Amino acid sequence: MDPLDALEAVIRERRGADPSTSYVAKLSARGRAKIAQKLGEEAVETVIAAIADDREELTKEAADLVFHLLVLLADAGLSLADVRAELARREGVSGIAEKASRPA
Amino acid sequence: MDPLDALEAVIRERRGADPSTSYVAKLSARGRAKIAQKLGEEAVETVIAAIADDREELTKEAADLVFHLLVLLADAGLSLADVRAELARREGVSGIAEKASRPA
Amino acid sequence: MDPLDALEAVIRERRGADPSTSYVAKLSARGRAKIAQKLGEEAVETVIAAIADDREELTKEAADLVFHLLVLLADAGLSLADVRAELARREGVSGIAEKASRPA
Amino acid sequence: MDPLDALEAVIRERRGADPSTSYVAKLSARGRAKIAQKLGEEAVETVIAAIADDREELTKEAADLVFHLLVLLADAGLSLADVRAELARREGVSGIAEKASRPA
Repeated sequence: MDPLDALEAVIRERRGADPSTSYVAKLSARGRAKIAQKLGEEAVETVIAAIADDREELTKEAADLVFHLLVLLADAGLSLADVRAELARREGVSGIAEKASRPA
Repeated sequence: MDPLDALEAVIRERRGADPSTSYVAKLSARGRAKIAQKLGEEAVETVIAAIADDREELTKEAADLVFHLLVLLADAGLSLADVRAELARREGVSGIAEKASRPA
Repeated sequence: MDPLDALEAVIRERRGADPSTSYVAKLSARGRAKIAQKLGEEAVETVIAAIADDREELTKEAADLVFHLLVLLADAGLSLADVRAELARREGVSGIAEKASRPA
Repeated sequence: MDPLDALEAVIRERRGADPSTSYVAKLSARGRAKIAQKLGEEAVETVIAAIADDREELTKEAADLVFHLLVLLADAGLSLADVRAELARREGVSGIAEKASRPA
């Protein structure tokens, strides 16, 4: 199973758990703005790790960023499937545009 | 094919393309700091869409954020597979911790 | 006159100007979220300039950040005076705390 | 005395203090990237408070943002005077541009 999907399933399950036993439940209980704040903080850390060219740190920060993005999407009633669909739609549009511009 | 993997393949292919015909090539040519800056900007937009509770906008901004994260990872010689492995490692650690805490 | 106060006065004056002739008017007309987004973007650029240790760029980005903070405060009906009062209050509290902790 | 200048003086003094007794000393000892990270985090919180239209919170977050900007500038050997000079230079340029565009 794709670890991204496994993580999303765990996040959905834990959202309703006891906040004292789950970070996802605790963060979700603090509300949308707090989850968004955490996403913003992880993005800042990702930026810093990328510029420092610290590949191990960048991998960890990227994982933190994705984790918090999934928590945020779940809080908004959205899923990674919605993001995949949006990316597929764009790629499709882009692919069609490329084909259309090819000489016959 | 997972649109995330399809997108990553396209990004890797376009990195070396003519900057005048590809956004990925153009952005990558501007260097790591500029890619990181764009990631930071998309994160800010994701935060704002999440708080505005605009689901359609949040889906688009999340897609933009993921797109720029993939461009940044590629620039650092990393891939979504590295992020997936990091998330799987954590989930595994977390799963083991949960099992260990179960009463016999 | 403190350039910060001069800038704040100019921002307040231009907020109501014709958006086609003033950046402040144009940005303000786009609303609170857009101003906040710009502040976030300037913060990202400040972070990057600071880490790159580019003092000239950091000075410019810090100026951009302060400029957009003043536009944001004005949009919320707040002023630099409010921020100064908050900082003075904290410093006063901190000063009192330091004195209180001194041995007699 | 302008609370901004008073704060900058305090920050410069405390940078060399014992990290166990001063937040400024502790943060500065962690290095440029960590200070920049804190600035980025405070910017995210400022964005969120602005969009929530919480004026009291926005005032506090703006003060936190300015505080960390001063710590960051000090760490880079820059000062608020440099930022003021940059803003004055721009305003002067802008003023000259406005005059130049006036019909005789």
